[in-house]
Amino acid sequence: MLSDAVRPDAGRLIVIGTGPGAPEQMTPQAQAAVAACDLFFGYGPYLDRLALAPHQARIASDNREELARARQALDRAREGHRVCMVSGGDPGVFAMAAAVCEAIDRDPAAYAGVDLEILPGVTAMLAVAARAGAPLGHDFCAISLSDNLKPWSVIVRRLQLAAEAGLVIALYNPISRARPWQLGQAFDTLRAVLPASVPVIFGRAAGRPDEAIRVLALETADPALADMATCVIIGSAETRIVARPGQGDLVYTPRFSAGAGGDTP
Amino acid sequence: MLSDAVRPDAGRLIVIGTGPGAPEQMTPQAQAAVAACDLFFGYGPYLDRLALAPHQARIASDNREELARARQALDRAREGHRVCMVSGGDPGVFAMAAAVCEAIDRDPAAYAGVDLEILPGVTAMLAVAARAGAPLGHDFCAISLSDNLKPWSVIVRRLQLAAEAGLVIALYNPISRARPWQLGQAFDTLRAVLPASVPVIFGRAAGRPDEAIRVLALETADPALADMATCVIIGSAETRIVARPGQGDLVYTPRFSAGAGGDTP
Repeated sequence: MLSDAVRPDAGRLIVIGTGPGAPEQMTPQAQAAVAACDLFFGYGPYLDRLALAPHQARIASDNREELARARQALDRAREGHRVCMVSGGDPGVFAMAAAVCEAIDRDPAAYAGVDLEILPGVTAMLAVAARAGAPLGHDFCAISLSDNLKPWSVIVRRLQLAAEAGLVIALYNPISRARPWQLGQAFDTLRAVLPASVPVIFGRAAGRPDEAIRVLALETADPALADMATCVIIGSAETRIVARPGQGDLVYTPRFSAGAGGDTP
Repeated sequence: MLSDAVRPDAGRLIVIGTGPGAPEQMTPQAQAAVAACDLFFGYGPYLDRLALAPHQARIASDNREELARARQALDRAREGHRVCMVSGGDPGVFAMAAAVCEAIDRDPAAYAGVDLEILPGVTAMLAVAARAGAPLGHDFCAISLSDNLKPWSVIVRRLQLAAEAGLVIALYNPISRARPWQLGQAFDTLRAVLPASVPVIFGRAAGRPDEAIRVLALETADPALADMATCVIIGSAETRIVARPGQGDLVYTPRFSAGAGGDTP
């Protein structure tokens, strides 16, 4: 657990998440952290979401250099700066908090004097789910489809087991220019386990002006509907679609599962 | 997907999450929704987190009457009220958004005129993870341990498959007076699959004044450390603990998995 006590002689690193992108979905706690810091590290498009003052410096870096970025931020904190590491969504979900922990793990003595605070945020799957209805209303999992950080065979096995377990599946990092075929293979893997009618939600830029939410059945789900800004949610066999004329469909997973009635009448 | 267009003749139901409990972790979007509504439904302790004005009425109900509460809220919205349904954390994760969708699903014609909006929030596992380090930094799942809503055999099977898949596991509703033995059985189930040293985080009231975060190895994890306000996170075989003298340990799950190096040096 992290300590609330700030040692006056130590630098500080605060790791925040901006939420899905709309300013009104970023917590006041994260906004206060932004106001209190002087150096900002992160992927450029996430830093662009902050309204920084002239005295606040930004060091943008590519999304694939997470460990190097974590070390740079820790180094500046060690020098006494108040440093903010900026993730999109929640910093603990496929984002910078793990990279910062890893950098400390590799050299704990070097960073012993840095006070670390991690502040949670609204992660993409929650924002997409809210716009679609309640697809994550029952047991679910979050899996990154990037095989830069784990073997593809591990990902396929996880998808199979998650579907067999009846978990709704939220896919992060579904596709990129360097990883064009993985999402199609993931759908094929899931089609072998799940009913063809299971709803698949393509949630792009949820809560932002360029938002696009599409719902298709698994049998017709098309990987071309996803891009790097998309979170894909694949229902379980129990996920349902409610047609609401004039308002767009609701997709939800019931709170109860076969064999238990709960508070049904 | 939900429509942004509010029909002027319709009532409105906004489903919000307060976040983990601290006011500074509730999004400005949810706070604006509170200011715009006149009737508030929810579990009493969650309604207590809101600073309501004298003209704003609250209808508190027991946590086990979710479907009835959803119908009441929809009925009042249909009458033209601006109704707010209040969940703790995120409303889409084991909370009221699914109950509202279910109520509409059971009688879509009755509620066709109600404008529904669901706003995401910071769910408990993200708040606990941030206080512990980054245990959800790699693939993970969220499972409710309540067998009120599904058979216990389904839960046990899900735990086994999730652990075999290498997913970190966040347990919601781990224990209650009516469900005293389930968490102990869940630990036993996981001990048969996972290494004895896997870290288990008991995260109680994360971000609130009465916060308590405890970390134990799976072999010594004691169900008595959990109560209804606790989210339990069980690591995978890859989850690590970094000792930070004077600051409390960091628990994190590395971004990369065995067999893939990522951007390691």
